[in-house]
Amino acid sequence: MTTAIPASAPWRATILTLYPEMFPGPLGLSLSGEALARGAWGLEARNIREHGLGRHRSVDDTPAGGGAGMVLRCDVLGAAIDAAAPAGDPRPRLLMSPRGRPLTQARVRALARGPGLLVVCGRFEGVDERVIAGRDLEEVSIGDYVLSGGEIAAMVLVDACVRLLPGVMGKEASGVEESFEGGRLEYPHYTRPRAWEGQAIPEVLTGGNHAAIARWRAAESLRLTRERRPDLLGPDARTSP
Amino acid sequence: MTTAIPASAPWRATILTLYPEMFPGPLGLSLSGEALARGAWGLEARNIREHGLGRHRSVDDTPAGGGAGMVLRCDVLGAAIDAAAPAGDPRPRLLMSPRGRPLTQARVRALARGPGLLVVCGRFEGVDERVIAGRDLEEVSIGDYVLSGGEIAAMVLVDACVRLLPGVMGKEASGVEESFEGGRLEYPHYTRPRAWEGQAIPEVLTGGNHAAIARWRAAESLRLTRERRPDLLGPDARTSP
Repeated sequence: MTTAIPASAPWRATILTLYPEMFPGPLGLSLSGEALARGAWGLEARNIREHGLGRHRSVDDTPAGGGAGMVLRCDVLGAAIDAAAPAGDPRPRLLMSPRGRPLTQARVRALARGPGLLVVCGRFEGVDERVIAGRDLEEVSIGDYVLSGGEIAAMVLVDACVRLLPGVMGKEASGVEESFEGGRLEYPHYTRPRAWEGQAIPEVLTGGNHAAIARWRAAESLRLTRERRPDLLGPDARTSP
Repeated sequence: MTTAIPASAPWRATILTLYPEMFPGPLGLSLSGEALARGAWGLEARNIREHGLGRHRSVDDTPAGGGAGMVLRCDVLGAAIDAAAPAGDPRPRLLMSPRGRPLTQARVRALARGPGLLVVCGRFEGVDERVIAGRDLEEVSIGDYVLSGGEIAAMVLVDACVRLLPGVMGKEASGVEESFEGGRLEYPHYTRPRAWEGQAIPEVLTGGNHAAIARWRAAESLRLTRERRPDLLGPDARTSP
């Protein structure tokens, strides 16, 4: 896919990758796909190899100083970035990398409010450091694990942003998000049937006392956060009853 | 895609989703795709809706106690899990969820050494809590942000595991991984050309002194980790020079 983004799209993502055929992939289905189809956002995937050198369109070379793997060349990636986002393009430029700052929902919210993204997907051992500084790339990590390349990480980032765009998810999204952004994990959910394999829905949830339900949910939310993610709680909250 | 996994595949991933057409998606290309094509691992995506109720194959209902969104029913998801992984299936069962424990490279390594994965992709507001206990689902989060569903998160998990399977990446992977697993971010990479837009490759890397190169890389690795991820360093390392 190297289609042009409709000029009318209010939020535009350009992906620089060696595997443009991975896009839109899962972003072309479900909520993000429906929003993409009606022009609520725009996506283009551009092949870095179009700016490769020589007959073989070479994009990488061996690391200076020795070592395993190959490094993406700064001149090739620099040219690809310049072609995709000419001077004056206001979109932030991100490089998906396990070396980057961890992605947070606050950063996602800020990016979703902006004009869109230019995302560089790393492959091989890494990217020549000079193009990171030279093209003002912000290194972003989606988590403390290693992927085979930046493409699926870019999909994570774009999906997280797109669901926050006006009209994409509506009010359905609000529950998970507010809970999460409040620094607490979400409370447990239940729905019909009332009993299943000997397990009943907690009585408070079916009693109709809305204040009691709200208290139960807040307490469960705090309990789960303490058990699983004490790092999300301040030091005071960690020791209080 | 609801194809059977070849019985010979040594590591098998089964995805339970409402969007089976998202798979293999990016997992069907590049390194993981080549390994999939030659049977080094197996993948099947099964539609939870096959176990939906009534003429409309309904899978969700409103949350007990009220609130926004819809909750995936425990009876429907329980039946889908039972059909995909009958008693005796030794594979761990994971639920992708922002409420889960954060995925780490250590967990990825353990999962890659096992027989494979059964991965449940959440959608809507959440999943009925009872099926999490009743089917022994391990909740896993890929990071502190919210996605429109668990499918891209499942791709992250599977990609991270597959690149560690024997013969998939070979020695190319070792550099990034060892650096990362050692609790340090990777040092900067450089390759040809020697000068680019007025920026030269650091002299030490082109001097041929391997001990000096190793020292420089270790120091850069520590510097970047201190700057960007002091949380990865112990309290002693944080204050040492």
